[in-house]
Parts: sequence; C-alpha cells; structure tokens
Amino acid sequence: MKTRIEADSIGSLEVPSDAYYGVQSLRAKRNFPITGTPIHPVMIQNLAKIKKAAAISNREAQRLPEEKAAAIIYACDEIIAGKLKDQFIVDGIQGGAGTSANMNANEVIANRAIEILGGTKGDYTIVHPNDHVNMAQSTNDVIPSAGKLTVLDLLPDLLHALESLHAALLDKSQEFDHILKMGRTQLEDAVPMRLGQSFHAYATMIERDIRRIERARKELFTLNLGGTAIGTTINASDYYLHHIVPTLAAVTGYPLMQADDLFDATENLDGFVTISNTLKTCAVNLSKMCNDLRLLSSGPRTGFGEINLPPMQNGSSIMPGKINPVIPEVVTQVAFHVIGNDTTITMAAEAGQMELNAFEPVVFYSLFSSITSMTGAVNTLVKNCILGITANEKRCEDLVSKSVGITTALCPYIGYQKAASIAKKSLKTGESVTSLVLKDELLTQKQLDDILDPYALTGPELPAEDNLAG
Amino acid sequence: MKTRIEADSIGSLEVPSDAYYGVQSLRAKRNFPITGTPIHPVMIQNLAKIKKAAAISNREAQRLPEEKAAAIIYACDEIIAGKLKDQFIVDGIQGGAGTSANMNANEVIANRAIEILGGTKGDYTIVHPNDHVNMAQSTNDVIPSAGKLTVLDLLPDLLHALESLHAALLDKSQEFDHILKMGRTQLEDAVPMRLGQSFHAYATMIERDIRRIERARKELFTLNLGGTAIGTTINASDYYLHHIVPTLAAVTGYPLMQADDLFDATENLDGFVTISNTLKTCAVNLSKMCNDLRLLSSGPRTGFGEINLPPMQNGSSIMPGKINPVIPEVVTQVAFHVIGNDTTITMAAEAGQMELNAFEPVVFYSLFSSITSMTGAVNTLVKNCILGITANEKRCEDLVSKSVGITTALCPYIGYQKAASIAKKSLKTGESVTSLVLKDELLTQKQLDDILDPYALTGPELPAEDNLAG
Amino acid sequence: MKTRIEADSIGSLEVPSDAYYGVQSLRAKRNFPITGTPIHPVMIQNLAKIKKAAAISNREAQRLPEEKAAAIIYACDEIIAGKLKDQFIVDGIQGGAGTSANMNANEVIANRAIEILGGTKGDYTIVHPNDHVNMAQSTNDVIPSAGKLTVLDLLPDLLHALESLHAALLDKSQEFDHILKMGRTQLEDAVPMRLGQSFHAYATMIERDIRRIERARKELFTLNLGGTAIGTTINASDYYLHHIVPTLAAVTGYPLMQADDLFDATENLDGFVTISNTLKTCAVNLSKMCNDLRLLSSGPRTGFGEINLPPMQNGSSIMPGKINPVIPEVVTQVAFHVIGNDTTITMAAEAGQMELNAFEPVVFYSLFSSITSMTGAVNTLVKNCILGITANEKRCEDLVSKSVGITTALCPYIGYQKAASIAKKSLKTGESVTSLVLKDELLTQKQLDDILDPYALTGPELPAEDNLAG
Amino acid sequence: MKTRIEADSIGSLEVPSDAYYGVQSLRAKRNFPITGTPIHPVMIQNLAKIKKAAAISNREAQRLPEEKAAAIIYACDEIIAGKLKDQFIVDGIQGGAGTSANMNANEVIANRAIEILGGTKGDYTIVHPNDHVNMAQSTNDVIPSAGKLTVLDLLPDLLHALESLHAALLDKSQEFDHILKMGRTQLEDAVPMRLGQSFHAYATMIERDIRRIERARKELFTLNLGGTAIGTTINASDYYLHHIVPTLAAVTGYPLMQADDLFDATENLDGFVTISNTLKTCAVNLSKMCNDLRLLSSGPRTGFGEINLPPMQNGSSIMPGKINPVIPEVVTQVAFHVIGNDTTITMAAEAGQMELNAFEPVVFYSLFSSITSMTGAVNTLVKNCILGITANEKRCEDLVSKSVGITTALCPYIGYQKAASIAKKSLKTGESVTSLVLKDELLTQKQLDDILDPYALTGPELPAEDNLAG
Repeated sequence: MKTRIEADSIGSLEVPSDAYYGVQSLRAKRNFPITGTPIHPVMIQNLAKIKKAAAISNREAQRLPEEKAAAIIYACDEIIAGKLKDQFIVDGIQGGAGTSANMNANEVIANRAIEILGGTKGDYTIVHPNDHVNMAQSTNDVIPSAGKLTVLDLLPDLLHALESLHAALLDKSQEFDHILKMGRTQLEDAVPMRLGQSFHAYATMIERDIRRIERARKELFTLNLGGTAIGTTINASDYYLHHIVPTLAAVTGYPLMQADDLFDATENLDGFVTISNTLKTCAVNLSKMCNDLRLLSSGPRTGFGEINLPPMQNGSSIMPGKINPVIPEVVTQVAFHVIGNDTTITMAAEAGQMELNAFEPVVFYSLFSSITSMTGAVNTLVKNCILGITANEKRCEDLVSKSVGITTALCPYIGYQKAASIAKKSLKTGESVTSLVLKDELLTQKQLDDILDPYALTGPELPAEDNLAG
Repeated sequence: MKTRIEADSIGSLEVPSDAYYGVQSLRAKRNFPITGTPIHPVMIQNLAKIKKAAAISNREAQRLPEEKAAAIIYACDEIIAGKLKDQFIVDGIQGGAGTSANMNANEVIANRAIEILGGTKGDYTIVHPNDHVNMAQSTNDVIPSAGKLTVLDLLPDLLHALESLHAALLDKSQEFDHILKMGRTQLEDAVPMRLGQSFHAYATMIERDIRRIERARKELFTLNLGGTAIGTTINASDYYLHHIVPTLAAVTGYPLMQADDLFDATENLDGFVTISNTLKTCAVNLSKMCNDLRLLSSGPRTGFGEINLPPMQNGSSIMPGKINPVIPEVVTQVAFHVIGNDTTITMAAEAGQMELNAFEPVVFYSLFSSITSMTGAVNTLVKNCILGITANEKRCEDLVSKSVGITTALCPYIGYQKAASIAKKSLKTGESVTSLVLKDELLTQKQLDDILDPYALTGPELPAEDNLAG
Repeated sequence: MKTRIEADSIGSLEVPSDAYYGVQSLRAKRNFPITGTPIHPVMIQNLAKIKKAAAISNREAQRLPEEKAAAIIYACDEIIAGKLKDQFIVDGIQGGAGTSANMNANEVIANRAIEILGGTKGDYTIVHPNDHVNMAQSTNDVIPSAGKLTVLDLLPDLLHALESLHAALLDKSQEFDHILKMGRTQLEDAVPMRLGQSFHAYATMIERDIRRIERARKELFTLNLGGTAIGTTINASDYYLHHIVPTLAAVTGYPLMQADDLFDATENLDGFVTISNTLKTCAVNLSKMCNDLRLLSSGPRTGFGEINLPPMQNGSSIMPGKINPVIPEVVTQVAFHVIGNDTTITMAAEAGQMELNAFEPVVFYSLFSSITSMTGAVNTLVKNCILGITANEKRCEDLVSKSVGITTALCPYIGYQKAASIAKKSLKTGESVTSLVLKDELLTQKQLDDILDPYALTGPELPAEDNLAG
Repeated sequence: MKTRIEADSIGSLEVPSDAYYGVQSLRAKRNFPITGTPIHPVMIQNLAKIKKAAAISNREAQRLPEEKAAAIIYACDEIIAGKLKDQFIVDGIQGGAGTSANMNANEVIANRAIEILGGTKGDYTIVHPNDHVNMAQSTNDVIPSAGKLTVLDLLPDLLHALESLHAALLDKSQEFDHILKMGRTQLEDAVPMRLGQSFHAYATMIERDIRRIERARKELFTLNLGGTAIGTTINASDYYLHHIVPTLAAVTGYPLMQADDLFDATENLDGFVTISNTLKTCAVNLSKMCNDLRLLSSGPRTGFGEINLPPMQNGSSIMPGKINPVIPEVVTQVAFHVIGNDTTITMAAEAGQMELNAFEPVVFYSLFSSITSMTGAVNTLVKNCILGITANEKRCEDLVSKSVGITTALCPYIGYQKAASIAKKSLKTGESVTSLVLKDELLTQKQLDDILDPYALTGPELPAEDNLAG
C-alpha cells in the first residue's frame, strides 16, 4: 500500500496515499476499537452541512479566501450527497467529546478540497483541516450542533410511523366499535366494554406521544454554533458569529436559532435527555399496548382469544401450526432497548464537567439507535400487525355472558353487599346473575333489560368520524 | 382492647371499637407489610377532596340523601384540615391498584359520618363506605385522580425552590462577572472565561428545568373521574358524570378537565412518567452543577480552589479543619434517588395490562418521594450553599496567567500549527506564551494586548440586569 | 427550652440542655432536610458496636483511660439495646459521606458517657466525641463498616423468607404434580405439562437466588476498619490496627476480616453494588413468577383460570365479588422498587472520587429499603398467597383436550408439515386432532394412546421428596 | 434474479434460487427491520455447533439416517469454520423468541446438506429444516443454549483484557510506590499517601471484578438442551436426551451440564442477568478509576496535575497543544453503555411469561454488545493509557507540603480541637503547620520529624512483588 506521512502534535504516521482522511482520523480509529460501527451516516452529512455553512460565513466575513471556500463547499456538497462515506473511519463511541469525528470531517473535506484545487492529498498548505475547514469552529460547538441536526433529520420518520399507527388504531376503533367484550382490571373480569374502545384508548395514547416528541424536538432548533471552544466565541469573527446560524438554517431548511447563553448550550445535554425521555415514554406506551395485544390474542384455545393478530411467520420450529405474536414481541424488545439507552443517556448527561460534556458520542450513539430502531418497530407494527387484526366477536360475547361482571351495574339498585353475594353465588353454582336476581325478586326482567343494555353499560357509540384534531 | 366485628367478602374480623377505619383497611394493613410508611398525607387530603366533590355531585344528582351527604362532606372537611390522619393505616406500597387506600378513605369517612349522624361506628346502614361514600366512583378513577392532585399540590414548593435557585445563580453571575478564570473542557485547561458566565449558564439551565416541569404539570389537570371502573362510566349518573370534575375543580382550585377518552385516562400512566422524566432531567442538571461546584471549590490547597462554598459543618471526624462540600453532595445523592425512582416509575407504567395499571401505588410512592426530596435538596442548596459562595479572584487570575490556553486566541493570527508548537514549548520550559511569541517576532506587544484583552477574550460584559423574562 | 452552647469549627450553637446529641448533629439536621426519615435503627446499633469495639481496642492499646473506656462501652451497650434512638436526628440521605451520622453517634455516646461519669452534658473535657469516642477511627472506615454490618444483619430475614418461599413452592409442586395442563410459550398454546412442574421450576429459580445472595453476602465480611481516613491507618496505633476487627468480630459474632488493601476497601463500593445486583436479580425472578400467578389465576370466567389464589381482601370498591391478585401485585411493585434502587446504587458507586465515595448514605438508604421491603413482600407472598393456592383441575384438563398442542407429539411420526396441516384444520373446523389423525389413517388408536400418555408427554413423575440439597 | 418458490404455514414466497436460507428466514427479515445488524457471528457458529451435536446424537439414536446426518454435520462444520455467514439474514433484535434465528440456521444447514447430497436447494424431501436439522430440538432449548455458548466464547477476551489491566496497575503501583502525594476525600485535601497505593487499590478492585465475572460465567455451563419446547422433552428420544449435552460438550470443549429442572432452565433468564450484573459492576469500577485518572491528570497548569496520561491524539480542533484524556473518556462511555444494556436485560428478563421468555433476542443483542465493547475499551485502556502513565513527582511533593492535611497526624498528640485551630490559622495566614506547632511549643522538632516521617504517615512500603495469588 502506498502511503504518505502526516504529522500532528503526537508525531508522524503513515496514511494510505489515496485516503481522504488524515493522521488524526487514523489515530482515533486505533484508539477507539469499541463498537465496530462508524458514526451515523446522517451525522456525517450534518457535519458537512455545518462545514459548508461555516465556509460560506467565513468567506463572507472575508476570512476565508474565495477559492478555498469554493473548494470546501464543493467537497461538503459531495458528502451531503452521500459520497466519501467510507472515509469516515472513527468509531461511533469515541473519547474526546467528538474531536475525532470533527477532525475526520475536517481532514476528509480538506483533502477533497485540496484535490479539487489540483493539489496533492496531505498538502495542507493549500487547505488546512483546522485553519480553513474548521475555521471559527470548535468540536465543542460543531459536534452538539451536528447531533441536534441529526436528531431533527431522524425524527420525522418516527413521527410519520407513529401517525400511521394512530390512524390504524382509530380505524380499528371504528371497525370494532360494536363488539361487546369484558373489560379486565388486574387481569380479573371487570365490567363490559366495547372492543373499539380499547383501540380508541390506544390511539389517544399514541397521539399524546406524538405531541410530546414534537414538542421536545423543538428544543433542538437552538444551537451553540459561534460559541466555539466553550462559549466565549473565541476565534469567531463578529460577522461569523451573527451569520453562522442563519446560514446553516438556509443550508438545512430548519428554523435554527443561536442560543442566548452559549456556555449553557455548550456544556449541558439536557435537551438530548428530554428527547430520549419522550422516546422512553412512547416505548412504555407501545410496550403496554403490545402486551395487551398479546394477551387479547392469546390462545388460540387456552387463552383469552378475543382478537387475532395476522399470522406473519411459522411460530415454532417444533410445534406445528403454532403462530406467535412476533410483531408485538419485537416492539416490546425495542421498547426495552430504548429504555436502556435512556439510562445510558441520562448517566452521560449527568457526567458533564464544567465547560463541556465529554460524553456526547455515547449520547448520540444511543439516541440515534433509539430513534431508528423504534421507527422500524412502529412501521412493522402498523403494517404487519395492527392493520390485519380481526376480532372473534362470538368469543367476546360468550365471555361477557359467562361472567359476573355485570353485577356491578346492579349495585345502584340492589346495593353493594347484595350484589356481592349474588356474584359469589353465581360463581359457585354457575347459575347466571340475571337468573339469580329474578329468582330473588330483586329486580324485574324489564329493569334488568334496561340496566344491561349494551350501550347503556359501555357508554355512547363512537361518532362516525374521529381524528387527531377531534 | 374493645373491638367490633366487621365483615366483608372474605369473612369477619375484629376491628378496634374506636377505629374509624374498618375491616378492609385492617386486612390491607396485614396484607402489605412493605415500607412501614403510610400513604402520603397530601394524598389522604386529596382522597377526601374527591369524596367531598363526589358527595356534592351525588347530592345534586339526587342520588345521595341530603343528610348523608352533609355528614360525608363534614367528615371530608375534617380530613382536609389534617384530622384523622392516624386512621389511614395502609402501607404506601400496596397491591390492588390502590383499592385499599380508597377503601381506607371510604371507611374512615363513613364511620366519621355515622358518628356525626349519631350512629355507632361500624353501623354501615347509616352511611355505607361503598354505597354512599364511594358512590359513582371506583378505585380506578379515584386513585389516579388523587395521585394527580397530590403531584399538583407538591410541585409548587419544588418550583418555588427552583426559582430561588435560579435567582441566586443570576445574582452570583452578576457578582462574579468581572472575574477572569480558565475555562476547562474534559478537565483540561481550555480558554479563559469569566466566573460569572459559569453561573449564568447554570441559571439558564435551571430556567429550562422550571419550564419543563411546569409544562408537564399541565398534563395532570386532566382526570378520569366519572369513568368509574374502566371508563364506561358504569354506575355514574349522567348528572354526576358531567359535574364531578367541575365540582372538584371548585373544591381544589385547579382548572381540572375531564379526559375525552376515559379508558385511556384510566389505564395509562404516561402522564406520571412524563413528570418523573422532567424531575430526572432536572436531577441530571442539578447534579452536573453540584459536581462543578465541588470541583471548583476543591482544595483548599491541592485542588482547583477557584471558589469557596460556605462551610456548613465540620468536614471530618478525624481530620481537623477539613470542610467538605456537603450540600452539593447531598443534592447529587438526591439526584441519584430521583433517577432510580424514574426507573421504578418507568417499569411500573410499562407493566399496565388492559383496562388498568395495577401498579399505581409504587408510582405514587416513588414520585412523591422524588418531589419532596428534591424540594428539600434545592432549598438547602440555595440557602446553605449558593448564596454563600465566594470567589478566590487572585487564584483565578494566577491560573489564567500560568496556563497556555491563550494560545487558542493566537491561531487566527499565527495558525494552528505554530500556535501548537508555542504551547508545547511553553509547557515544557515554563516560559510564558507571550514571551515566546514576542521572542519569535510572531506578533507585536500591541497586537498581543488587543488579542488578549479579557473582554475580547471572553465576550461582552453582562448587562446590569438579567431576569427570567430576558 | 433550656439550652447549652456548643461550638465547632463553624461557630457556636444552642443545643437543648437534655439532648445527648451535640452541635454537629444539630447542624447536620438543618443542612439535610431530605427524606424526613432518620438513619436505619440497625445502622445506629452497628455504629455503637463499632464504637464499643474501638473503645475496647483503644483501652487495651493503653490509649484510652480505663474509666472513659468503660463509660463509652456502657453507653454503646445501651444503644445496642435499643435506647437513645430518638437522639439520632440526622437524615438518612445526607452529604458528607456519613460524617454526620458518625458524629451523631460520637456525640450521643460522649454525652451519655459524660453523664455516666457524673459530668454535665456538653462538657467534652470528660469524654470528647472526636478524641475519645472516635479515637483511631474516621467516618471513612466507620461508616462503610457499619453499612456492611447492617446489611449482614438485615439479610438473614430475607433469606429466611426466601427459604420459606422455596419450601412452599416445592410443596405445591408435589401437590399439583398429577394435574395435566397446557404449557404456554409466548402466551400461545404450546404442549401439555403438569402444574406441579411450573411450581418446581419456581422453586429451582428461588433456590438459585438464595445461593446468589448468600454468596454476595460473604463479600461484606471484609472491613476497612483501621484504615482511618483513607487507608493509611493514620492515627491508629499498631495495637488497634491489628485488634479492632477481631474485637468487632467478637462483639458482633460475624467472621469479620480486615481488608488486605485498605485504600481499595475505603474508596470502592462495588461490594454493595454486588449485593444490590443479587436483590435485583431476585426481584426479576419474583416478579416473573408473580406475573405468572396472576395470569394463571386470571378470570374467574374470562381468563386462564387454571389456579385460584386465596382471596385476601375485597378486590374492588365498585365491583362486587371481585377478588384481585393483590399479593402478587405488591410483590411486583416491590420488585420495581428494588430495581430502581439498584439504579441509584449503581450511579452512586460510579461517582466515587479518589480516596472516598461521598455518596455512601444514599447507597445505604436504598439498599436497606430494598432488603426490608423485599423481606416483607416475600413473607406476605408465602403466607397470604402461595400456601393457599388451589388448582382448577377440571379446567386444566378441559383446556388440554380443547387445544391442538398435542400435534407436536405427532411430528416424529407423521412429520412437521402434515402435523401442521392437521393443527390448522382442527383449529378451523373444531374437530379434534386425534379424530383427524384417525380419519386420515395416519396413526392407529393404539399408537395415539401410547404417544399421548400424560407422563410420556410431560416427563417422569416427581420423586416423593425433593429438597434444597437434592 | 432467479427464484424458487417455498411455502410455509403462512403461504408461499419467492426465494432467490442460490440462497441457502429459505422462506422462513426471508419472512423474518421482512418482519423485523430493526437494527440493521444481523445476529452475532459467534452466535451463528454456536447454532451450528448445537445442530452438529444434535445430528450426531440423533444419528446415534438411530432416528436420523446416516447419510442425512453426515451431510448436516458437514454443513455445520462449514458454518463453524466461518462460511455462509451472509446467509444469516435475520436481524439481531427479532420477535418470536429466536425462532427466526433458529429457522435461519435450520434452513441454511438443510439447503447446504441438500446440495452436498446432490439435491436442489429447496427440495426439503432430502433434508428437512424441521424434521431433520431441528430434530429433537426446539427454538426454546436451542436459542438459550446458543446464547450461553456465545457468552462463554466472548468472555475470555474480556477476562484476558482485565488481567492485563490488573498486571499493568500492579506494575504502576510498584513504579509509583515511593511518591508521596496528598490523598483527597470528597475532593478536599485529606492526608498524605503514596501514589503507588492508588494504583494498588485499582488493581485490587479489578481483581475482584475478574473473580466475579469468572464465577458468574460458570452458571452458563448448565443448558436446557433436550427439554425441547418447554422442558417436557417432548419429541426428544431418550438416547438423545441423555447424550445431547455430553456430545455438545465434546464439540465445544466446555464442561457442559444438563439442567436438573428443564422447565426452569427454559423459562428463566436470570443467569444472563447475573452475567450482565458483573459486567455492570465492573463498568462502575472502571469508570470510577478512569474518572480518577482524568482528575489526577487534569491541567496541565490549572488542574491537579499529579500524573500524565500518554498523549494519544490532538485534543482539540481549535485549541493548539491541548491533550485530552480520550482513553479514560471512552472507557466511561462504554461503562454507561454497559449499564444501559443492563437495564434492558433486566427488563427483558422480568417480562418472561410462563414457559418461555420471548425476549431473549434483545437480551443477547445487549449482552454481546456489552462484552465486546468492554473488551475493546479495556484493551485500549491498558495499551494506550495505563502503561504510559508517568508521575509528576515534584508536583505531588509540592502539594503535600503546601497542604494542612498533616494536622490530622498531630491529633493524637495535641487533640482534635487544637489541631483544628492550627489548620484554620495556617489556611488563613499561609504559615506552615509545622512552624505554627513549633511556635506554640506544642511539639518539638524531633517529635514532628517522627510523626511526619512519610512511611509512618502512609503505611509500610510495598513488598517487592505482589500478584493475583497474593
């Protein structure tokens, strides 16, 4: 392999001649053999967007010569378009608060710009990774900003998936609105309800998650770019300081703002904790719903058996005909993954010290993984599970008629104590509640009919349409 | 001990004659020997407020006779005023989704009402715990509602404490605005800043926590009262259904609303997870700041020694003269306590099944403990630490002048590589950066003076006033 | 209130004349208004045991005059006997790594010793809290040692409860060994098994927890006493250094050892994390089992209904006759509490710095709470749930015969694919698996009888006796 | 693309003609678009080892024809040798308790065996994935067993890394044994110690972690193979039941045992929780040590500056000459990752239901990631950090002489109160402690020399050799 020699503060090192990355990327690769996974491709693109916005701002501030700026911007556009991805060689979890990721970007962009300008890779007199590409920037404002942009880029897919889920659940709530079934509390027979009401409750819950994630997402529009090393704006020109964020807003299309307190925005990661919190809460809700789906579809013969999930694959390598709730199961596992990531993110955020939190890389690694795995999970949940759910109407009815849960409805008429003894007797003898009530002449058949009317028991019918705005 | 005999579905039991609680409370006490701590006193008051609002609504609905209603309301008012607290005997962590807490309230109120009406405790023909006190209610709408009201009651003290903290930090940011010191990233000397800027960053961070907690708090105004057992409103009269929440709003003074989807509001606990999340995030921030305070005050001779925390107590039983940062230490411990509680709350919320989450008691137990311990911690932090912090101005100055951090400011003028070699040389030889720069004729004294002007280095002076609105 | 004046490094303070605690306890009480709960009573006793062992050792080392030593020992014995508990006024969660707890003990013992010697409380020339009671000790060796002794004292009750649980589960496994039922995987009908086998599996699982807790407990016999402030043994005489641990072993009855590396033993809390880990794992297992019990007993009419938990209390304030699985529910809540505490303990242990971990108090607070709440939970689980479980033998049988799970047993004879299509057909038509097999002449009746023999299907009968040793 | 048609219970699907995987793998790939990462390569190898041992056992049991067995074993050996890896297409996190992973293995092995036997891929009459490759097995005994074998395979590298760490720390404890420095508790100056003692404490701590991981590892030698679907051994011949584990022991070289209670071993995952616990505890210890290293090396000018970490890379993109503690930083991040994974594993283990825990895949995904990332982190810690640490002896000495920590040593001679006032005075005036003691004639110079002798102050010199056995 042909190599070139590059030097940094530590000494010099052989870098492959055709590599766009340089000595600092290479050292970092060797220092951090952790996950085997490089930084997220969307993060790479966002690093390039920041470098582009910085080059534009520095050029306008007349700090960066036109020619160098143009080459840097061209190189950035290539990376934004998805090129040179294999030149980003540092591990997703790395020490140094992201300096290695930032320098990897600086080196790749510098060398590509050098190439564009007709120079030889490694000849940093033409375009220097620090002096030109990183001009007016620090890892400490670039990395958290790139992290925020990446979360902003990744969340819409998740939100879209959750909206599909919400719509699918509302559809099912209409479809199942007429099916009477037993409600259960603490896994014990409670009182009758309609199956559609279960799905409406899930829809309402998911709507709340969507709102929470959207609200938390807005915190991420505020960046510390221009603060440079710790928030003092050292080495950023006045022009740059006031134009970098609007320029980046133009590059990315997001309504970005510069933080009022650049120190705070540099050293504190609570905005990421907040996003993770909303994902965690959504995970809690998704897992609760998926556990319900598994319970309601349990059986086919010895479980609750009120609904059927669409069969997606053979359920067993040994038990023929077995179909398992594999989609809800994977969603619950992703929920646990997201909740575990939240622990990691929480601890990393707490561990910040003075003017910087050195643990940003693991925060991003965990947060990106939470978002993408949850997006995949919700998508498969909608497509491969919710949309295909069917109800066992007859089974639902049978269970209601077998149960003693309707005695609750009699309490206002015959009192709690008498109702309790009827329930007890029915459970013991198997005789139906209504028959016992009539036999004891506690109520007339007419009264019973009125009290036990399904919609009287379970609340008003669902209106024909119901939506997010409703 | 004189006793009376009470019976329930399980059988009969001797209850002390003078007890206001009854057989169900007593069984629960025996069933749940867990924490040794009863349910939170504010929770007890809120149970009474709900029972009062229910009695008013049921009376107006002409379901509850005037006399019984009056006695129930009178008994509730006594409990709201703090009386009969010792009659609440069930453990804070209990099975049964809070049925025992609810029945404890029902029994105490019934027996006190019976007494008021001239009856003998235990004679439930006069006022019945279920039929009258619990009329139109279920544990499943009473308990989550009482839990929400309790959080609503407890949070203002915390918010007030955080506001005091915010104000104290802003004051300190003014007081220390002129003190030049070294900023540190990754615990390594970075670039100069002003001590006031550190405190301003903390203030900004805390302001964000206040906003988050306030926003999450609003989710709790929505109650499921009227939904009764599972959300179908079974056994609630139409009048009651539409009046219970406005009546409770009047009793409590909160702008309460009834949930649109009563099933969702009964079975999902994500609102409590959301509150806990904001407390967890605040805990992360508080602990980060307190760790900084401990670092900055470390010493007195062998640490950073830039600030002094007010001495609050002897620091050691063996080392004379030792003063420790005991207040930040206790705040960090409370932060860990709150984060651990968040894990508990998250798991409990995830474990809900179908129409109910049976694990509400541990959610409340943990959440109340998070709020009250954090309130105490923030109060002592403000009063016994932040307000008394002083700066070691001379020490801060000395450290800046000794450091090589100012080389960063020279980069735009002499380039990163030359600056790096100056820094390295200075560290090795001890010769100052400026002297090396002058010796190599890289810059003139005048240029150096301009570049190294403290406010040029650290950003503009703080305006005279700065506040939450700003 | 009559008061006396006491002074410390901070200044002077009025202390109630009759108080045994002194100025440092009082300051600590004011500094730490956190949980409202004092330090654990068993921790107080263990502080006294350490102080007693220290006084004995110092007397033998001829550093502490006979008379003072005798008075100190007498005072310690009173505290060990449970007296003076109300004099321990500092909060369970406190800053200062436990200095306040240690000084509270030093002050109470000093003042009681002064009183015994005929002096006036507060006259520390007679017996001094630091110079005499705390002689040769530091908070930093006293507090972790007292914490370990307290865990050693608290664990036997938990282990005893777990052993009762193990025995009760084994008994049930015998009692239910003959009952054929459907096994379920992923909540779906799997293959037949015997109910006793479920309980035997729980017993085996709990046996493993007992072993793990016992093994982890042994780590706690190693103490850092004699290390004093940081492990250098500063201010401990040679005699004391070599006799304090054996003396404390005699006082407590535990086979205590002195750590080989006193620095490590002073600064690292991983021994407590290890204990908490075993409690967490046990919590996981208990909760899994309790969730099973709730599933298996779900119903009575619309659930699995294979077993009955003993009814312990009315299940509902609104639904008459409802009985809930309140005991398993409280156990699961305690499991979440223990798992949350483990998060707290883990974070606190991670946060240690150099020669000390300042966050011991929250570790102890959480760990003691985990042990005692779990002990209560397991005790009520055995007594109020497991012992009273009954089986619905007929229901179990019916479910087996209705299911298609037995097709698995046919695979080796007719192949997976044919078995799968039989299962599918049976589920669709309702015709039994055996009838379909016979109709298609896949197997003879005799073959079917052999294959479907219950014990052939589910494994050998349980031997008559089975125990921990087995 | 040429395809073949394959069918399962769900229907038929086009599979690429040259694919070794089949319809079930393909469905699973589509159902679970979660992490984008396939199952761990070592897990794949272990699936093949189990299939090989099963084929051997079934052949010996005369259930599997010689020819088919030979082809299956040949195919397994290829996979064990690392071939066909790209045919394992299912995601690491999947629903179905690992059925998809197991079927992926069954299909690949079947098709490769078919090919070996001269058949056409997809012609399962020759070798059937379920009837032959999966003979006498179930996902429910194969997957947890493969998971255990994989952990057994992965742990030795971690243990080896930890042993290197232990050795490196012991070496440093010798190298630095003579260097006097200030000990710090609660970040405040405490009493003098020797730098080597710090490193010895770390070594002792790591030794304990090694022992704990080794001990927990042994739990994994017990497998549930032979239990098949739920532990009843359904479809396993007697011969197979008794020979599968010894045969696998021979194939793998591990001293494997069959679980006494196969139900327990199938349904409970506490063995994996236990391993994760030990990793979590080790993470706590590693992070604590790494935080210390960052504190002790903080500076170079404004921090503690007692040691130097070897510079591994440029520390900053903006601050020239800055060197950061990047290796300890990455270790701490991995610690947070491992602790977060432990939360995931704990929740997944708790969520098991009845005869199976469906959430095994996320347990393995998280556990494998914990082990491999920690192995990488410890390796880079040893090689790129610990081995190159140097001490700033002069700085350590200066700090000791400046501090007042030595007053503690005077307490036994002049009393705590006098010592405290000397310390206070020295801190205020800057006059040295010894000078103040002499001036007040509290002690003679000779006495001071004896008391303040470095080894008297800090404990006996380290013996020349010290090792794991010691």
